[in-house]
Amino acid sequence: MTETFTFSITATDGGARTGEIRMPRGVVRTPGFMPVGTAATVKAMYPDQVKALGADIVLGNTYHLMLRPGAERVAKLGGLHQFMNWPYPLLTDSGGFQVMSLAQLRRIDETGVTFQSHIDGSTHVLTPERAIEIQGLLGSDIQMQLDECVRLPAASEAVEKAMRLSLRWAERCRIAFGEQPGKALFGIVQGGTDERLRAESARELVGLELKGYAIGGLAVGEPQADMLAAIEVVEPHLPASSPRYLMGVGTPDDILEAVRRGIDMFDCVLPTRAGRHGTAYTRSGRLNLKNARHAEDPSPIDPESKAAAANGYSRAYLHHLVRSNEILGMMLLTANNLAYYQELMASLRKAIQDGRLADFVGETREGWAKGERDGGDEHREIPPDHSD
Amino acid sequence: MTETFTFSITATDGGARTGEIRMPRGVVRTPGFMPVGTAATVKAMYPDQVKALGADIVLGNTYHLMLRPGAERVAKLGGLHQFMNWPYPLLTDSGGFQVMSLAQLRRIDETGVTFQSHIDGSTHVLTPERAIEIQGLLGSDIQMQLDECVRLPAASEAVEKAMRLSLRWAERCRIAFGEQPGKALFGIVQGGTDERLRAESARELVGLELKGYAIGGLAVGEPQADMLAAIEVVEPHLPASSPRYLMGVGTPDDILEAVRRGIDMFDCVLPTRAGRHGTAYTRSGRLNLKNARHAEDPSPIDPESKAAAANGYSRAYLHHLVRSNEILGMMLLTANNLAYYQELMASLRKAIQDGRLADFVGETREGWAKGERDGGDEHREIPPDHSD
Repeated sequence: MTETFTFSITATDGGARTGEIRMPRGVVRTPGFMPVGTAATVKAMYPDQVKALGADIVLGNTYHLMLRPGAERVAKLGGLHQFMNWPYPLLTDSGGFQVMSLAQLRRIDETGVTFQSHIDGSTHVLTPERAIEIQGLLGSDIQMQLDECVRLPAASEAVEKAMRLSLRWAERCRIAFGEQPGKALFGIVQGGTDERLRAESARELVGLELKGYAIGGLAVGEPQADMLAAIEVVEPHLPASSPRYLMGVGTPDDILEAVRRGIDMFDCVLPTRAGRHGTAYTRSGRLNLKNARHAEDPSPIDPESKAAAANGYSRAYLHHLVRSNEILGMMLLTANNLAYYQELMASLRKAIQDGRLADFVGETREGWAKGERDGGDEHREIPPDHSD
Repeated sequence: MTETFTFSITATDGGARTGEIRMPRGVVRTPGFMPVGTAATVKAMYPDQVKALGADIVLGNTYHLMLRPGAERVAKLGGLHQFMNWPYPLLTDSGGFQVMSLAQLRRIDETGVTFQSHIDGSTHVLTPERAIEIQGLLGSDIQMQLDECVRLPAASEAVEKAMRLSLRWAERCRIAFGEQPGKALFGIVQGGTDERLRAESARELVGLELKGYAIGGLAVGEPQADMLAAIEVVEPHLPASSPRYLMGVGTPDDILEAVRRGIDMFDCVLPTRAGRHGTAYTRSGRLNLKNARHAEDPSPIDPESKAAAANGYSRAYLHHLVRSNEILGMMLLTANNLAYYQELMASLRKAIQDGRLADFVGETREGWAKGERDGGDEHREIPPDHSD
């Protein structure tokens, strides 16, 4: 196993590429989807299941973990990998997004952000240096800079101010992070939907020569077209040789479009949160298992999936479990959705390697359209809080 | 595999015995513990886990299943085994206990019981014949007679009246059940804490020549001594050649004492419900993982257990999951508790076979006493409703 953090591109197809991030704890195949393990657990999943379904890396949240159980406590217990029984790579979000979306009484100044815990109201301070210290205590393999996320829509002065503050924080994070050969610090491009600000943010960050670059501040309720426009503005400024991570995205269709535009890494609460609320993602569209039309349907969610959760139980049974609010319903649908996302990523990687991404995107959409899609636009249904 | 329902005793030690119930769907080793799968799921457990931890048979509830999803619907979907992915033996409770503990506006007469669903207030009728019809639709391997359970304490006239009504219902159930070679109907001994009524109930039931006999109306909050006294009164009246099932029992210590008195089968919500509320059963006593003293404890719940849930995670992590109300905490503690119960039953069977039950009981209690037992008397902590 390697002692360093490296990224190599293995194939390209248009703007899309496949690659491998190698680090001491394992290899992350890209484009890749990171299940969200907010509070040191991918909700309703055993860690070995998360791995078996195809995840190479899981995301943890600095904000949640600093509040409970506390970074120093996790460190004392051997770090986050050991704590949560996940010996493979971990990426930790720096907390900027959750401070904006979850914490009470935020006060932001040049130094950092002071906020009250949403759990018990206690006061905490997060500076760029403390964000890196916490992620170090957790033992995270890929650490994110602290950034300021503004709630959109916002005045363009506010967006610009937050973007520039985030750049200064990126520099402080870089200094605090120092040299850690097997680990990486990623910067976060901000700038809202303003093309000029996004481009400037990307250029300035790249000047810091970080090991990877994320696009933040998206997937907060804006139309997909705005999100894709922001990716298109940023992408040419990012070095092709570094991984690109689109934070908090997204729906399967968002992922298709972002991969076409050169994104390598994704995380999103959608598959896990939707799974806890009765929604299943499948090759033939999205199903709401609460719907009465499933009550006597003996067919599985997705007979073509390799996951037991997708093909080992009837829709009627899942309907019953969801209606009865049974934990097993949440377990099975979460597992199904993570299986679907990972199978989608594997198929995307194969399509890029085979030079047939455009065809694959078309076929995937045909599959979704063929099915009996329940409900409306999931992009709107899931609250933009990034909290689990 | 056998086409008939048979019970054979393989060893005895004092009043205790080991045996095997053979039926088309599998062998049930006795003394055995049946995890409770109220609403067609052992809560927070995958069915293959339940099997892997050592369960030969699972209990389902007529009351819950008739209300949701409905017995006819389950039958249409291939029966309860197929519905819940449990191809092994199933026992179904007849609903008498739940009608008493959960339903609204009960009206009991000679015919049966009319009640309102606790889910939606709809009105339902359960007669002895309908209870057997429902259990047949579910496809249950061991079916229970409909009985009237009185809430204790009750006037002795009420207890006697309910016991006699239950006997008449047993006879009607026997007629409704008819001859089903691979399946069994069990009668339920009633009579509260009255020795004369218990003895009479047992003698009369045995006259019906059923394939097994249960002791009902216990584990409803009475002291352990009262429960054991009732077993001692009933046991001499039951044929040694038939399985004896103590319904709704109990704590590990209840099980030790009941096995010594010749009981073969148990079911109880305790391991599963306690697991969802932060309590772990171990060889060295009961732990309340909510307790702050576990917050930085890197040791596992029970290093001697064969179950991953018991030895693959630290107490500190489980404490964190329980405090954070994470589903994985419920999953792991439920699995731990079912593993503990099944390991206890396996050890009991081995001790009986080796003729050293008394020693084993002593050693088991020493183990419990050695440990750092949290909290009070679990016999009192778990509400006596038998609802999950």
